[in-house]
Amino acid sequence: MERFTCPKCGTQYPTDIPRWRCECGAPLDLEFEPTFNREDIAGRDPTIWRYREAIPIRDDRNIVSLDEGFTPLLEVDLEGRRVLVKGDHQFPTGSFKDRGASVLVSKIKELGITDVVEDSSGNAGCAITAYCSKAGIRCTIYVPEGTSQGKLETIEGYGANLVKVPGTREDTAEEAMRAAEKTYYASHVWNPFFHHGTKTFAYEVCEQLGWRTPDSLVLPVGNGTLLLGAYIGFRELKAVEIVDKIPRLIAIQARACAPLYHAFKENLGEIDRKKTIAEGIAVAEPVRGTQILEAVRATGGDFYIVSDEEIRTSREKMKEEGFDIEPTAAATTAGLTKHMKRAEHDELVVSVFTGRRR
Amino acid sequence: MERFTCPKCGTQYPTDIPRWRCECGAPLDLEFEPTFNREDIAGRDPTIWRYREAIPIRDDRNIVSLDEGFTPLLEVDLEGRRVLVKGDHQFPTGSFKDRGASVLVSKIKELGITDVVEDSSGNAGCAITAYCSKAGIRCTIYVPEGTSQGKLETIEGYGANLVKVPGTREDTAEEAMRAAEKTYYASHVWNPFFHHGTKTFAYEVCEQLGWRTPDSLVLPVGNGTLLLGAYIGFRELKAVEIVDKIPRLIAIQARACAPLYHAFKENLGEIDRKKTIAEGIAVAEPVRGTQILEAVRATGGDFYIVSDEEIRTSREKMKEEGFDIEPTAAATTAGLTKHMKRAEHDELVVSVFTGRRR
Repeated sequence: MERFTCPKCGTQYPTDIPRWRCECGAPLDLEFEPTFNREDIAGRDPTIWRYREAIPIRDDRNIVSLDEGFTPLLEVDLEGRRVLVKGDHQFPTGSFKDRGASVLVSKIKELGITDVVEDSSGNAGCAITAYCSKAGIRCTIYVPEGTSQGKLETIEGYGANLVKVPGTREDTAEEAMRAAEKTYYASHVWNPFFHHGTKTFAYEVCEQLGWRTPDSLVLPVGNGTLLLGAYIGFRELKAVEIVDKIPRLIAIQARACAPLYHAFKENLGEIDRKKTIAEGIAVAEPVRGTQILEAVRATGGDFYIVSDEEIRTSREKMKEEGFDIEPTAAATTAGLTKHMKRAEHDELVVSVFTGRRR
Repeated sequence: MERFTCPKCGTQYPTDIPRWRCECGAPLDLEFEPTFNREDIAGRDPTIWRYREAIPIRDDRNIVSLDEGFTPLLEVDLEGRRVLVKGDHQFPTGSFKDRGASVLVSKIKELGITDVVEDSSGNAGCAITAYCSKAGIRCTIYVPEGTSQGKLETIEGYGANLVKVPGTREDTAEEAMRAAEKTYYASHVWNPFFHHGTKTFAYEVCEQLGWRTPDSLVLPVGNGTLLLGAYIGFRELKAVEIVDKIPRLIAIQARACAPLYHAFKENLGEIDRKKTIAEGIAVAEPVRGTQILEAVRATGGDFYIVSDEEIRTSREKMKEEGFDIEPTAAATTAGLTKHMKRAEHDELVVSVFTGRRR
């Protein structure tokens, strides 16, 4: 049984009719029962598709893949402690977003959709574009007018049509949503098929640890596409009794834009818009903010914020280790450094390099 | 028995004393007998180091690795034919040069060297820098003064010290060689340990094809570090009777700088300096030119040249397939396109995406 369900009003929808949000306006979840057999997996290619039966695509012929995934679980030296960092900067288009894009674009192909829109001036834009190109699906990316030439070239490098929108980041999103009324909104934030791609992060970590769960996962949170995906993945693995616990989710935000950190620390169920808009850069109003807060609380997790200075320092440190990572990845390793100072001696901590420098 | 041998004058040298060329001035080869057991390899991690016994590093503790290698053998649609392209653009620092850098820097660590120089404003500079950073080896990269800011930032992104040298590309190389008199020349062109890293290309292709040899390999040639490495690898695999033939080496050069193409077509044993310097961009005088010509001839291979227009067209085509590759990689796919028009119907052809766009 596979269907969209609204976590807010409870409405259910079939998944074979294109839809990207609930009639009530909330983002949808996907109900889906993965099957899973460890023995089958062992001999398969090292991509996310080795977990084929756990991915909600019906027909193999619809799979759109660039042989992504099964990124290395790197041992990195961090202030004298060895920690495990998932090398998701080694994905084909340069970030973990390929996990979600491969699954979402496969679903789009399965739905017979030939024309999509998305709004992103970063990693998600590159990922969605590349997989659409591969599948022969026409893809238009909406970006804020002020987006740097470098970023535009990167997205164009994977074959996208670009539309520049005057105004704020929110204006861009609204323009994409308007266009989506006539085409399809291939959104990495709204569309739960994307999260059923990012969940492969959990499957890979678990397999690479010999089918164990880490004690804690240190992950960045903007829109929370990786954190929510990992949470889905570990809950699925627990449901089929491959693991017996879900790791604590330790979420990292940049001090300059930390709406979820503040909501978490003040015990709020959702972000305080008045407060955060004043700080507003990056993702000031994450669509799935409530879900993210619930996930971190449910696992006994925590939030940290890191300053620009801490991000710079951590990036330099990673550079010395030979890793040329993006600032978001360095924010994560800066948060990881903080966490390691408090971590138990025998705590098994896993984190991520979200993306490479562009 | 492991030693340096000079293919020109026959002199032999031990490998435990730092040395980067023969007293006669020629580049050296490395004599080394790899051992190899297919059963041992099966369960190992998907990196170049799965072929541990075939790599000339004595002590495991000296291995400097970023978990590189075992890149996917991608199926790419090329003018209606499916061809196999090795996804070496997915290496940690963005190109196949990581194969060579991982092995060469491991050897440098094994020799106890703490300070090296290299000259490169591109992929090799990034790769050598990253592995030296990882190993805590001080690395200085010499680049021509006019090198673009983007390239400099990329190399600095992996932690290198940069020295800008006025004049030509050759002036830069000479400056690096002078500096190497006091330190160590970690050259991807001269140092045969680099080629004993790039040879893993052959091992991986062979394993991924179920221990078969392709009929032909289509590879780019500037300094020939990948072609010569692949040639070493396949000869080693043949020597231990894992394969019974060596693929035809099809070498691709850009029309604007094709000294080896011209030498090959005119049946010369080495490049015609007068002719090629007039065309001189890129690698006008490849150090190992004679070896490259010998390798292509010995395998019954061929040379193609591709025009800038063909490179642009092929890059656009690959973009449509979702691959954002560097121009050198597009030159290769342009050559591959030419070759596929002449290839036998059942010819098993393997090529490479050398690197991603920077």
